[in-house]
Amino acid sequence: MSVISAGMVAELREKTGAGLLDCKKALDEAKGNMDEAVTILRKKLGSKLDKLASRATKEGLIESYIHVGGKVGVLVEVNCETDFVGKNDEFKAFCRDLCLQIAAASPLYVRREEVPEAELAKERDIATAQMEGKPPAAVQKIVEGKLEKYYSQVCLLDQPFVKQPEKAIKDLLGERIAKIGENIQIRRFVRYQLGA
Amino acid sequence: MSVISAGMVAELREKTGAGLLDCKKALDEAKGNMDEAVTILRKKLGSKLDKLASRATKEGLIESYIHVGGKVGVLVEVNCETDFVGKNDEFKAFCRDLCLQIAAASPLYVRREEVPEAELAKERDIATAQMEGKPPAAVQKIVEGKLEKYYSQVCLLDQPFVKQPEKAIKDLLGERIAKIGENIQIRRFVRYQLGA
Repeated sequence: MSVISAGMVAELREKTGAGLLDCKKALDEAKGNMDEAVTILRKKLGSKLDKLASRATKEGLIESYIHVGGKVGVLVEVNCETDFVGKNDEFKAFCRDLCLQIAAASPLYVRREEVPEAELAKERDIATAQMEGKPPAAVQKIVEGKLEKYYSQVCLLDQPFVKQPEKAIKDLLGERIAKIGENIQIRRFVRYQLGA
Repeated sequence: MSVISAGMVAELREKTGAGLLDCKKALDEAKGNMDEAVTILRKKLGSKLDKLASRATKEGLIESYIHVGGKVGVLVEVNCETDFVGKNDEFKAFCRDLCLQIAAASPLYVRREEVPEAELAKERDIATAQMEGKPPAAVQKIVEGKLEKYYSQVCLLDQPFVKQPEKAIKDLLGERIAKIGENIQIRRFVRYQLGA
């Protein structure tokens, strides 16, 4: 049986806005295949899904962090479903952790979907060039591995959490969603470095 | 004789990085014409000017502001010439004032040069359409007046300072430059409004 991680459930919730249980069930049914799980949910929930997804982005918090000395600053927007949760200490702590993460690990995007196709093509080219002479099947696997590594460097959700590097930010997000019981979305962030 | 305002001197310093006295003299000589003053400075200072301008953007502060309730957040980068000034209380207070200004008055750009040509054309079109039937000379003058008003709404440097609406942010900047004695540049800012 496939193992469905909290991070995968969070990713599916982020994608669809569907409930925790629905997401878990769909992932189980799809044996962990994300695209298939989205299809299952769309079939099951239909137009309700759009309503859920839009519901998720109305409330939340904007949080900032200025690193000592004022040379690095971060602004982040995190959305949740109700104003009530936006004022929750757990939610606030999550927003502060995200700020620290962004300041320390300098991600460029929130999620994989935001990486421009040209950037991906460049990364693929570099990885493929490094593998010259190897059998095509092996190359493809290694290239995909290198892309995963690239995502874990530039995408906030895929980055290892600086305070607990054994979990990715999407796992942290999944835990918070499970604990708080509401969909949470990291909408956008910006990181300024003095003169950079 | 033309009157040279602190705001004009600040604008010229921002454009060129030249010293306070040089900027004032050039503006006097150009009778307040900004483009001519830049030309005068370039003739006088030559390649020194590039060095000055690049010198200005190395130090400074990144400052943030989150409005009560976390629904609006601002991040701003302000540059000065030396790390010493970046730690100056007067400079810090200026950065905080800028954050308040951006949170309250929602500018879209730092300076006029950043307004996209398409936006300007749209504003000109609207203003011209409103004036239909008037003599062309009058129309041009009124349209220019409306553009000035547009700048004072969307450009941070042209906005009236929320704490003292009788002065523009560029006047405030000019005062700070004169008092601190170092070139200061508002490099960039971002303003997040929850869900907007």
